[in-house]
Amino acid sequence: MFEINTQNKIPVYEQIYTQLRQQIINGELPKGSRLTPTRTLAKDYHLSRNTVLSAYLQLQSEGFIRSVQGSGFYVEDLPEYKGRTIKEERKNTDSDKRKLLRYDFRYGLIEPNIYTNRGFRKAMKDAYEKLELKKAVYDEDPQGLLSLRQAICDHLKQERGVNADPEQLVVTSGHHYSLQLITSLLSKDEYCFFMEEPGHQDSRESFIEAGYDVHPLELDNNGAIISKLKGIKNAIVYVTPSHQFPSGYILPIGRRMRLLDWASKNNGYIIEDDYDSELRYKERPIPSLHSLDHNDRVIYFGSFSKSLSSDLRVSYVLLPQSLKLYFNDSQPFINSAVSSLIQLTLNEYIDSGEYQRRINSIRNLYRKKHNMIIDFFRNYYEDDIKIFGSGGGTHLLLEINTNLDQEKIISKFKENDIGVYPTDIFWANKKKARRNQILIAYSGIPLEELNDHLLQMKKVLDEIIDS
Amino acid sequence: MFEINTQNKIPVYEQIYTQLRQQIINGELPKGSRLTPTRTLAKDYHLSRNTVLSAYLQLQSEGFIRSVQGSGFYVEDLPEYKGRTIKEERKNTDSDKRKLLRYDFRYGLIEPNIYTNRGFRKAMKDAYEKLELKKAVYDEDPQGLLSLRQAICDHLKQERGVNADPEQLVVTSGHHYSLQLITSLLSKDEYCFFMEEPGHQDSRESFIEAGYDVHPLELDNNGAIISKLKGIKNAIVYVTPSHQFPSGYILPIGRRMRLLDWASKNNGYIIEDDYDSELRYKERPIPSLHSLDHNDRVIYFGSFSKSLSSDLRVSYVLLPQSLKLYFNDSQPFINSAVSSLIQLTLNEYIDSGEYQRRINSIRNLYRKKHNMIIDFFRNYYEDDIKIFGSGGGTHLLLEINTNLDQEKIISKFKENDIGVYPTDIFWANKKKARRNQILIAYSGIPLEELNDHLLQMKKVLDEIIDS
Repeated sequence: MFEINTQNKIPVYEQIYTQLRQQIINGELPKGSRLTPTRTLAKDYHLSRNTVLSAYLQLQSEGFIRSVQGSGFYVEDLPEYKGRTIKEERKNTDSDKRKLLRYDFRYGLIEPNIYTNRGFRKAMKDAYEKLELKKAVYDEDPQGLLSLRQAICDHLKQERGVNADPEQLVVTSGHHYSLQLITSLLSKDEYCFFMEEPGHQDSRESFIEAGYDVHPLELDNNGAIISKLKGIKNAIVYVTPSHQFPSGYILPIGRRMRLLDWASKNNGYIIEDDYDSELRYKERPIPSLHSLDHNDRVIYFGSFSKSLSSDLRVSYVLLPQSLKLYFNDSQPFINSAVSSLIQLTLNEYIDSGEYQRRINSIRNLYRKKHNMIIDFFRNYYEDDIKIFGSGGGTHLLLEINTNLDQEKIISKFKENDIGVYPTDIFWANKKKARRNQILIAYSGIPLEELNDHLLQMKKVLDEIIDS
Repeated sequence: MFEINTQNKIPVYEQIYTQLRQQIINGELPKGSRLTPTRTLAKDYHLSRNTVLSAYLQLQSEGFIRSVQGSGFYVEDLPEYKGRTIKEERKNTDSDKRKLLRYDFRYGLIEPNIYTNRGFRKAMKDAYEKLELKKAVYDEDPQGLLSLRQAICDHLKQERGVNADPEQLVVTSGHHYSLQLITSLLSKDEYCFFMEEPGHQDSRESFIEAGYDVHPLELDNNGAIISKLKGIKNAIVYVTPSHQFPSGYILPIGRRMRLLDWASKNNGYIIEDDYDSELRYKERPIPSLHSLDHNDRVIYFGSFSKSLSSDLRVSYVLLPQSLKLYFNDSQPFINSAVSSLIQLTLNEYIDSGEYQRRINSIRNLYRKKHNMIIDFFRNYYEDDIKIFGSGGGTHLLLEINTNLDQEKIISKFKENDIGVYPTDIFWANKKKARRNQILIAYSGIPLEELNDHLLQMKKVLDEIIDS
């Protein structure tokens, strides 16, 4: 009845448990039947009675059998449950979703790799040592460590003119999660959502997914056309005023003031996504919209994704005072989205002054890359390629004189192991996207390799550009 | 008109920019007025013309002035925007939200501190070195690193009988974010939500927040009463079958099969939150509901919060095949919620076998703590304190023979620097909560300090227990 192997690595009680369990599920041991008494079974198989009892107690705690005082163990009345007997074999189809191509102008790549930065390594070492000293590490604050929030606020004040209060700052695990915080704080029943068109795809989709009425806010050559908000009340407006994503326009001061004025008079909230503002190559960084806001209407989004690495997964949201946080002691089960180690590391890195040094250093480096690319296209394709979005950030839009559409252009490049990216995904109304436009980012390509990358690109461009 | 200080740390062009900007905002330089020509200004202040031009170009790029070919720079027509001139002083009221008390039986504390674990330290060192070798680090997969997902699946298969496919696994930054993944995948218009009552507060609130119809699924002494689902269709049911949270019941096999059967016949999904199943002290861990599911109805929630540390902020969700993920290459802007460093560290830690060792070691340690507490209450308060939820996990419920209610009990303990916690928050209908019940967790208290903690507790208990 049982196969017991005492030489087996599997404990004997588990062997008994497994076989009995199977017999009950099979129906070999039908409901109501009495199990062999533990004493008998132990004797028959030369086992200790406790071993057998362990197996029975396990079955009892899982509800397969019940014990009747003075009488023994009986199989419970189990409902029938038939499923496919064997699970369909799942094929592992996990593809290399984001495999890099040999020459990849991928958005979001940042070099030099922050993990090779001496200051960062030291910050992490210090952070780790601090954590080692604790008896038990736990999530001290669901908003993010206070000292990190203070360091971010000090940085924002100095760099972006943002008058930030750590109490209103929330550390998140990235842009997507910053958006989720807002959709959880502002009700879709009270607010509709206006979104730059074209604009950041994930911002649009997050609000659609959360059930908001989502409307486009069109751009002209100065960025979002604020006058279109006339007559609108109770709306959240998402803008990237310092460097419109993806088009690169800078929202002029007149429109900024009009936008703020609209928000204060119409119960509007403005999400200012300041995603790459530190990286300006001609002028100083453009002052933030938040720095002009006197009426508590701006929700400021910041991130370490461009300045350090998107792979750190740290962004932050600075909330207006009117948006009360739902984090408090009566909700002990919501935790911060970022591990203490990463938070403490950033804290140390900012406080040591190394973060500002890093920003200055990549700004200088990216300026060189930016200028090299602009020069390249001017030299070779002055009449055939229009560039949008120059002057800052990590990406450019190229409009190519070709009959091919985006998909074809991209696949032509891909055939040559070159990664360039579509822009039509940024339009709610894809028909309005420029057919012959692509996005390239240069932040991930080392300066010394950039020329070679561009020459590879040239081969394809020479082929696809209409003569 | 200008105050230029060449000894100042602030660059001269910025001094000019700032002052002109202020004059425009003030109205000192009204709209349409022509700025002093760059050449003149440069001469008057003994500056290079390029310095002045830089300031003007910055103002132009921000939209304060425009350049008219051959004529110079003119102030733009800016709208009026009046706000409170000074932002209200924000008081830093950030309290010590989660400050630990001297004797804190806080849920979520885990010791020994994982950062002091040699294997973990080595895993992190190895992970860091791997990252250093990359040119540019980026988020390779929004679902989580494939190798980590594979390691988790192997672990689940072995430990929990879960037949897991890495393709269906998503790494999240904690329970709250696992819930958000589900609310984003299953529409509230199609599904309602049933939740154990009492049950995990955040699970209930996340679904309420996301707009679902939320219904209680009451418990009896065997856990959730599955028969109450009769007649219900299109529902998500949240259960903690291996160790009901917070009550500690184990859902019997009969009810498990009934629940699975209900789900397969009624388009139901079951969220199996397997939050602390590795920690059983009498029996083996209870097999997962997922291991019995042949019809693709179980959404399995796992976490490293109990086995390692909640502060790592890593959980995971194993989706049924019927739930298609929205992650794909056309959505390049959604990223994983967890940094590569933490993911790689866990990957190394699991693969090295150290993770399993850690689980075994804390299981033995927590068993001792668990038994010490049970013995303590049996010895001193056999008649006056009922214990719920023993046998596994990291917490217990105590029902105290006292006239005081939860709030009073907790504040009595707090006066003595002892942290114990309410249970009424776990009920949707708080009136049903037991008035005199509290939750204590022991995972964060070192074994050698536990007796002292209990003796401190005794002082308060002796005072509040009714004679």
